[in-house]
Amino acid sequence: MGGRINTIMQTCFFAISGVLPKEDAIAKIKNAIKKTYSKKGEEVVAKNFAAVDATLAHLEEVAVPSSVDVNACQFPEVVSSKAPDFVKKITAKMMENLGDDLPVSAMPIDGTYPVGTTKWEKRNVSLTVANWTPELCIQCGQCGLVCPHAVIRGKYYDDALLKNAPSGFKSAKLKDKKLGENKDFTLQVYLEDCTGCGLCYRVCPGVDKTDKTKKAMMLQDKLPILEVEQKNIEFFETIPFADRATLEITQARSLQFAEPLFEFSGACAGCGETPYVKAVSQMFGDRMLVANATGCSSIYGGNLPTTPWTCNSEGCGPAWANSLFEDNAEFGLGLRVAEDLALHQALQLLHKFENILGLELIAALEQGLKENNEKAFANQRELVKTLKSKLQNSKEADALRLISLADHLVKRSVWIMGGDGWAYDIGYGGLDHVLASGRKVNVLVLDTEVYSNTGGQASKSTPRSAVAKFAAGGKPNARKDLGLMLTTYGNIYVAQVAFGANQVQTLKAIKEAENYAGSSIIIAYSHCIAQGYDLENGLQQQKLAVNSGFWPLYRYNPDRRAEGLNPFQLDSAEPSIPFKDYALNETRFKSLLKANPLHADELFALAQKDIDEKWKILKKMATD
Amino acid sequence: MGGRINTIMQTCFFAISGVLPKEDAIAKIKNAIKKTYSKKGEEVVAKNFAAVDATLAHLEEVAVPSSVDVNACQFPEVVSSKAPDFVKKITAKMMENLGDDLPVSAMPIDGTYPVGTTKWEKRNVSLTVANWTPELCIQCGQCGLVCPHAVIRGKYYDDALLKNAPSGFKSAKLKDKKLGENKDFTLQVYLEDCTGCGLCYRVCPGVDKTDKTKKAMMLQDKLPILEVEQKNIEFFETIPFADRATLEITQARSLQFAEPLFEFSGACAGCGETPYVKAVSQMFGDRMLVANATGCSSIYGGNLPTTPWTCNSEGCGPAWANSLFEDNAEFGLGLRVAEDLALHQALQLLHKFENILGLELIAALEQGLKENNEKAFANQRELVKTLKSKLQNSKEADALRLISLADHLVKRSVWIMGGDGWAYDIGYGGLDHVLASGRKVNVLVLDTEVYSNTGGQASKSTPRSAVAKFAAGGKPNARKDLGLMLTTYGNIYVAQVAFGANQVQTLKAIKEAENYAGSSIIIAYSHCIAQGYDLENGLQQQKLAVNSGFWPLYRYNPDRRAEGLNPFQLDSAEPSIPFKDYALNETRFKSLLKANPLHADELFALAQKDIDEKWKILKKMATD
Repeated sequence: MGGRINTIMQTCFFAISGVLPKEDAIAKIKNAIKKTYSKKGEEVVAKNFAAVDATLAHLEEVAVPSSVDVNACQFPEVVSSKAPDFVKKITAKMMENLGDDLPVSAMPIDGTYPVGTTKWEKRNVSLTVANWTPELCIQCGQCGLVCPHAVIRGKYYDDALLKNAPSGFKSAKLKDKKLGENKDFTLQVYLEDCTGCGLCYRVCPGVDKTDKTKKAMMLQDKLPILEVEQKNIEFFETIPFADRATLEITQARSLQFAEPLFEFSGACAGCGETPYVKAVSQMFGDRMLVANATGCSSIYGGNLPTTPWTCNSEGCGPAWANSLFEDNAEFGLGLRVAEDLALHQALQLLHKFENILGLELIAALEQGLKENNEKAFANQRELVKTLKSKLQNSKEADALRLISLADHLVKRSVWIMGGDGWAYDIGYGGLDHVLASGRKVNVLVLDTEVYSNTGGQASKSTPRSAVAKFAAGGKPNARKDLGLMLTTYGNIYVAQVAFGANQVQTLKAIKEAENYAGSSIIIAYSHCIAQGYDLENGLQQQKLAVNSGFWPLYRYNPDRRAEGLNPFQLDSAEPSIPFKDYALNETRFKSLLKANPLHADELFALAQKDIDEKWKILKKMATD
Repeated sequence: MGGRINTIMQTCFFAISGVLPKEDAIAKIKNAIKKTYSKKGEEVVAKNFAAVDATLAHLEEVAVPSSVDVNACQFPEVVSSKAPDFVKKITAKMMENLGDDLPVSAMPIDGTYPVGTTKWEKRNVSLTVANWTPELCIQCGQCGLVCPHAVIRGKYYDDALLKNAPSGFKSAKLKDKKLGENKDFTLQVYLEDCTGCGLCYRVCPGVDKTDKTKKAMMLQDKLPILEVEQKNIEFFETIPFADRATLEITQARSLQFAEPLFEFSGACAGCGETPYVKAVSQMFGDRMLVANATGCSSIYGGNLPTTPWTCNSEGCGPAWANSLFEDNAEFGLGLRVAEDLALHQALQLLHKFENILGLELIAALEQGLKENNEKAFANQRELVKTLKSKLQNSKEADALRLISLADHLVKRSVWIMGGDGWAYDIGYGGLDHVLASGRKVNVLVLDTEVYSNTGGQASKSTPRSAVAKFAAGGKPNARKDLGLMLTTYGNIYVAQVAFGANQVQTLKAIKEAENYAGSSIIIAYSHCIAQGYDLENGLQQQKLAVNSGFWPLYRYNPDRRAEGLNPFQLDSAEPSIPFKDYALNETRFKSLLKANPLHADELFALAQKDIDEKWKILKKMATD
């Protein structure tokens, strides 16, 4: 039954309340279970029946004392004493469900609202958490990439640093010698933020040769190791993140060293969306502007009381906002236009202050805008500091204006994010219009193939034969192929990715999308509880989706044309398993087979045909 | 200068008003001409200069008499005395610009509004009109197909009918013997509705062998032939239209005999949209429901005081309505849903009256719904009449309900029409959603590649390098390929057509679209004054658009898959001329070459590349 308790609590209530005779009540509960869940399969019904029986068998009376000594109970602090003032006084109140007691005057007077506050909200939702064994670890970084909550962090550092480490601190010699000699490596698990989803364990290739059940990343009970790990975390945080300028991110191995600026969100355990969001935050850092469509990503991305979007040690982070469900692409385009205008103005003002700034600095700044790598960005940041210091004594209005605009001389990266409900349906008209503009924006579609946040309504991305709200008899039509549609423009970078099936291709697509001078879109397979299965199998399902040809991986890069190459590259192999081998692991497909086997077989056959037909087209496209 | 008079009238005004010294005023007018039109080319400037000079040379004083005898002037009737009462009392008032004098009580009390009223509004906009020479005519019907105003009508009839014809009535022996022996053929030109656009003359293949300048359809002065032709029209209207059930419409030759239910609209002379609208009305007649997007087609389609949508001799015609610019596809889907519901209810009620109707009639009606040809529709109409007469004495509420629903037992054909501003831009989100539904609706996009009705703003259909509002420097991006995008669904019938380049393919696509059981869309090249050239050359430009590969003709028919065939058929040949040979005949492209030759060359080269790239893809798609 996982974390679900309604069946159990209901059984308890009717067993002891006497509202109905106990036998009648239990019979009625079982009938209701049959009625509600039989569409989901015998297995689910049986599990619920077992839960009822076990509840009755384990019902115990708890004696309520006549009085309680409040002082005898020790409640942990809501937030750490190290939290900033705002979090202690405001955020913590809301966490305690005492937000109504806050006066309006407690709110920030200018509307700004502190970010990066999820780190203070220790959810402790799971008693089972990830645990790292350095000896088995190959330092590939895959666990960090797949972790939906940025709970697993990788750092490498000089041997010398270990001197001050607490005794329980775990480390290994850094295997990647390109990063330097005499370095150590640590993967730190943030235990209180871990949801125990198990994705890290499933992806881990660090298997013990003598005992194959043991891996470098395992799940284990939290309480025995909590105290030690809390001390470890405290020490771990004193180790600086790797210098971004030295990172060449092409694999999880390198990605793990880039600081995530999206962490500890309230997304579901095992969420298939957040690994993408986190990876993008690692790759583009504080240069990001994010327009976020309404949907799961706007909820876990900007919910009260805490926000997972955070900033780096210099206090800089992505700018993030959510406008409306229907206008997110347009909103993101507005960020781009505003950004370009600010840059344009800054460039104009530079030349007004040639005497103060010097032609050399101006030329260097202008040159810096043509570069597109972390070293150049770091260099440009330094130049901007120089610019600001040179102008600091000027009282001219234009000098103040230039100081305020100068940060725009470091190239920004605009990201437009949202789910399939937004991208395929409600926001599609605007998405199409914005992409057609050719302006430099990157779109990331977190594609769960259903309206996840509002309870599972069918979107145009929902696959044929999947059951969803408004498609109770299985979706009769093939899913819309958003990616292929957009390749017809010819000047849009388009990629279809699935991090569970091919991490390297995913990271390559994200990088290419941002490097491309025009509009880009990445359609990202996101496993989701709405699909109906234990998300510990999420990565496996992603692989099956790709292997069945249901979710082909590809990249369409218009830049390749200049080199005389076909812009379309098919990144996954010819289907090797039937669609059903993928689909029937998920309730959305399985339940149709149960409810209406004949119709299900028809739809599955059509879904298989869709795949076969689509492959023909993709192969033609990939051929010169 | 064509029909434009502003330059001439302005010159007159300043030449005689004395507001400025005459020489100064003329110099200023010429400067203004240079400033306004030099972007459109030297030729346009020279034409305007010549118009100014000719105006001054021909300025004549008209003596105004001291008093006027109103009775001495004979004004023609605003509408014919044969017009219906409503037209005489209400419509005619508006035509006279006296609509403000009409009281609200003059309006129909239930909101219904008489249709088919353009036939009473004799616009007489051209002194030059089409004229038919039977001896040269090969009876191909192409003039009728291309005529934007349904001004050229074809009928065939028994020899005997000619007995009562007026002396000037023109006819020829019917060449198509399949339609019967001893038949005659007449093409009747409605002179007062002819705009003199010349498309009929240009398309006419009936050339005199001895004098190649003579054709079966020519333009000539209207006044000398008006009286005779008015009598001819009167007689022509007494000849019945061909029985729809006998028509197999595959070419203009057969189409010309089907009554158009869209006639004499106020569209521009030479309009490239209306021939499609008219053809559809001829093919599907009174079974049509039309949802019309805002744009040219909603203005000429439903403007006050008169409407071109009309009904047949039985008083039945298409139902037509315009909702909003942004929701036309959804509106059309609503018509479909309502239609299906009415049919469903009618079918249910049939069985309630088995005793009265008899099982044979019910079975025949049910069988009729499975057929899809004019003979079956005619038969079904008869069955519906029988049904109504059998029920006429029943007083049961359900019987009355069935009588009111019975007409829905004749299959309806839902059409969703609009321009590219709607389909590519403002209504695209909804269009995509409706087409994805797979419901049986047909979409007709009248694609002028620009917002024609609002004065020429760029749409996503505007070609790269074309000048338009919001694309004053030439559109920088390639046009959106709406058709190709929609083929990615796999279950939408998609066709791209151009009646000026291939009439047979156009008609085939329209027919296949309606025959297809799912959603369909036809993207129809529509030449337009907004493209900037004499529309007498419209058909020639359509040919060049196709021959250059700029506008490939194709049909994507999902039904072919069932036969193991590739659904995609490329209907036009490999490009045989460069893009510029097509483009530079039109001001939208030419003006860029004038204003910015270097940039124009760049954009033309890119536009050529777009075509080359697209052809590669289309060829791949067409290959098995």
